[in-house]
Amino acid sequence: MSDLKPLFSPKSIAIIGASKNPKKIGYELVYNIITGGYEGRVYLVNPEGAEIMGLKSFTSVRLIPEDVDLAVVAVPAVYVPDILEECGEKGIKAAIVISSGFREVGNFELEERVVSVVKKYGIRMLGPNVFGLYYAPSRMNATFGLSRVYPGRIAFVTQSGALGIAMMGWANLYKIGVSAVVSMGNKADLDEADMLDYFASDEETKAVLIYIEGAKDGRRLMSSLRNITLKKPVVIIKSGRTEKGASAAASHTGSLAGTDRIYDVAFRQSGALRAMDLTQAFDWVKLMTMQPPPTNENCIIITNGGGVGVMTTDACEEAGVNIMPLPEDLQSEFKKLMPVFGNFRNPVDLTGQAYEESYYKSVELALRDSRIGSVIVLYCQTAITDPVAIAKAIADACEAQRCSKTVVTSFVGGAQCEEAMRKLDELSIPSYPIPERAVSSLAAYYRWQRYKLARAKV
Amino acid sequence: MSDLKPLFSPKSIAIIGASKNPKKIGYELVYNIITGGYEGRVYLVNPEGAEIMGLKSFTSVRLIPEDVDLAVVAVPAVYVPDILEECGEKGIKAAIVISSGFREVGNFELEERVVSVVKKYGIRMLGPNVFGLYYAPSRMNATFGLSRVYPGRIAFVTQSGALGIAMMGWANLYKIGVSAVVSMGNKADLDEADMLDYFASDEETKAVLIYIEGAKDGRRLMSSLRNITLKKPVVIIKSGRTEKGASAAASHTGSLAGTDRIYDVAFRQSGALRAMDLTQAFDWVKLMTMQPPPTNENCIIITNGGGVGVMTTDACEEAGVNIMPLPEDLQSEFKKLMPVFGNFRNPVDLTGQAYEESYYKSVELALRDSRIGSVIVLYCQTAITDPVAIAKAIADACEAQRCSKTVVTSFVGGAQCEEAMRKLDELSIPSYPIPERAVSSLAAYYRWQRYKLARAKV
Repeated sequence: MSDLKPLFSPKSIAIIGASKNPKKIGYELVYNIITGGYEGRVYLVNPEGAEIMGLKSFTSVRLIPEDVDLAVVAVPAVYVPDILEECGEKGIKAAIVISSGFREVGNFELEERVVSVVKKYGIRMLGPNVFGLYYAPSRMNATFGLSRVYPGRIAFVTQSGALGIAMMGWANLYKIGVSAVVSMGNKADLDEADMLDYFASDEETKAVLIYIEGAKDGRRLMSSLRNITLKKPVVIIKSGRTEKGASAAASHTGSLAGTDRIYDVAFRQSGALRAMDLTQAFDWVKLMTMQPPPTNENCIIITNGGGVGVMTTDACEEAGVNIMPLPEDLQSEFKKLMPVFGNFRNPVDLTGQAYEESYYKSVELALRDSRIGSVIVLYCQTAITDPVAIAKAIADACEAQRCSKTVVTSFVGGAQCEEAMRKLDELSIPSYPIPERAVSSLAAYYRWQRYKLARAKV
Repeated sequence: MSDLKPLFSPKSIAIIGASKNPKKIGYELVYNIITGGYEGRVYLVNPEGAEIMGLKSFTSVRLIPEDVDLAVVAVPAVYVPDILEECGEKGIKAAIVISSGFREVGNFELEERVVSVVKKYGIRMLGPNVFGLYYAPSRMNATFGLSRVYPGRIAFVTQSGALGIAMMGWANLYKIGVSAVVSMGNKADLDEADMLDYFASDEETKAVLIYIEGAKDGRRLMSSLRNITLKKPVVIIKSGRTEKGASAAASHTGSLAGTDRIYDVAFRQSGALRAMDLTQAFDWVKLMTMQPPPTNENCIIITNGGGVGVMTTDACEEAGVNIMPLPEDLQSEFKKLMPVFGNFRNPVDLTGQAYEESYYKSVELALRDSRIGSVIVLYCQTAITDPVAIAKAIADACEAQRCSKTVVTSFVGGAQCEEAMRKLDELSIPSYPIPERAVSSLAAYYRWQRYKLARAKV
């Protein structure tokens, strides 16, 4: 970990290829680093020594009078080896090479020269061909992606630059807090395994989400996964699953997507959770950063609508979440909280007449019972009840019980349900617009929990 | 069809059990029918002859001086047989029985009495135990659900009342236009098959979405499905797929969920499209009401991001959408529209530098070519391009080509992408926040199209 400190938490940064033209990447980088709140020293390097955003620039990194930890390089590809040579002489220990025009367009030789320079000086390099690195603890936005990011506890690691920028946008839109965004690019030096090793001991990161098309060193990736998944969950999207997808991946990042089944088994054996699309991946990490893992295999569904109760039961059964048969004492407790035509078996159906109080008492009852390990709370829009008030009742019950079980919620309906879900999310009680997404997230959490328990037994 | 005209398009309605208490269903019904814009005559029936929303009420349906087509009944269950008897004597031909307290709570005998009365008078009855019927062409909101509904071309038919209300909310929230919402309740007389027969020849309805837990008469349902699916797509959510789900369905609606495999085969053989959750179902009907079905099996992906291109290719392969190998002449045409590091094979990658013009020209090129049957257009957020402008370029190209192929889009990213997608949806170019949902919808359309072609050959 310590050799990546200059990359993630540099005391000073040199932006090489800084530009005063707002349409250039070399300007975006300066803008994002300065306005992002980074508190270390920033030096600009520009061949003409231009003044950019009020900062003077140096004509060479060698002329910077003080030590520099990290170089962010955005110059034409052909100059990159010489620039890195200068960085090495200057004693810079980390570099983010934004420049493209290397292996990804067939310039293998140029990329090899870059590699030999960084090896010679012991520079740890991200790239080339990346959109940058954002790291919340350092308030460092060394990307040409979005200038504002919603800070939090999830680290994104992505082999696709475009997807990385889109993920930053999504995180902002859905208020999913991000600890880091790392663009992997050509992985000429650092790769996903290095990132996993770093995030394994990064206290600011609670979960990692990776997009990958192919691994450089499968064995090392697996070993890093096995290490980190004992501590925190890792959700992986591995594309190129199909023959045509793999061939598209080959022309995109030059990745050998490999036999998908091998990846699938490798991920499972190393405790990584494979998501099939971005929604799934975001849903899962959202739960995992908000709630503790389930304490046992017994899950209970509390609903006000029979239909969504049935749908949720199906989803649980199919995803391996155990809808526990309720012990009789619990049945009679629940029976007191509903009209005669309610259902006090699991799924517990409070009926469409359930107001705040019956939600509060039912959730409280479920949370208090040590036989229950996870709770799915559903609300289906009615003409007579107020979803926002019910959301508050659920949150109050969780708080009153100092909740240590996994709670997920789904509010199915219109604008008021949306508002209720936003409130729940803000209180770290994850909610989803359809119950199946809540179940999919809970099931993923269970899979990770089971993996850890199995490892602990070995 | 004609015998359901009094139900869907009554010239006059009697609301029996109208109430002046705003907390009662009998008030909600009056409110929704009056404020919903229904233009026929409305008569209120209330034992005390109360004045409700400025309307005088009659103490009995028999005292109404003119003919009545439809009775909406919301009185305690025990009075329902007598009330329907009066309706029969009055010559009323259709009834919506909102009242609950029949078979669903074990009162089989009471429900049988209701059935014998409606049989005796030839009344076609929806219910009992329903939340009502909304029908856009009549501007009739005879429900105690939401008072405002976004009108359009999709008919909802639901066995779960709560889900029906929630669906109305969703439709409003996502601006998915609805032609009808039908709550099926206990299906003592009318069932899903009757609704399908009606919507088959209803010109206002372009697609039907059904939620069902169990069929009353499987054979008749299948026959009605086979009839309607030749004309318009039907998307079904059938829950109770698993053993525990089926048992939950039994306590919810008393449905015998039956062996799921049998339903699955029956749906497939009758051309119905089975969706696994609400998001899928809404996604599919959205596409089917906005766009024509694909003209041939060849699909092309146009993207600005390699990563989403790979993910979309995987999804297409897995869902049976054929990513066509591009003929050489098309390859060289696309090559002109992208930088050297773009990809002119399918998926066509215009790269992150693609602005409005290259999107416009690429979409135009794809739409003009008769070898292509469907087009997936993707946009992945970048720091330099404007998703809203690109959405407009896509829409312009579709309009310029008087598009007769299926176009679906997905804009992956933050708030601006959301805005771009709203614009596209408004122009009937369906868009989805992740490409997999666009693919899933397109694949469902293809399945329906193939079914129709296969039937035409027989």
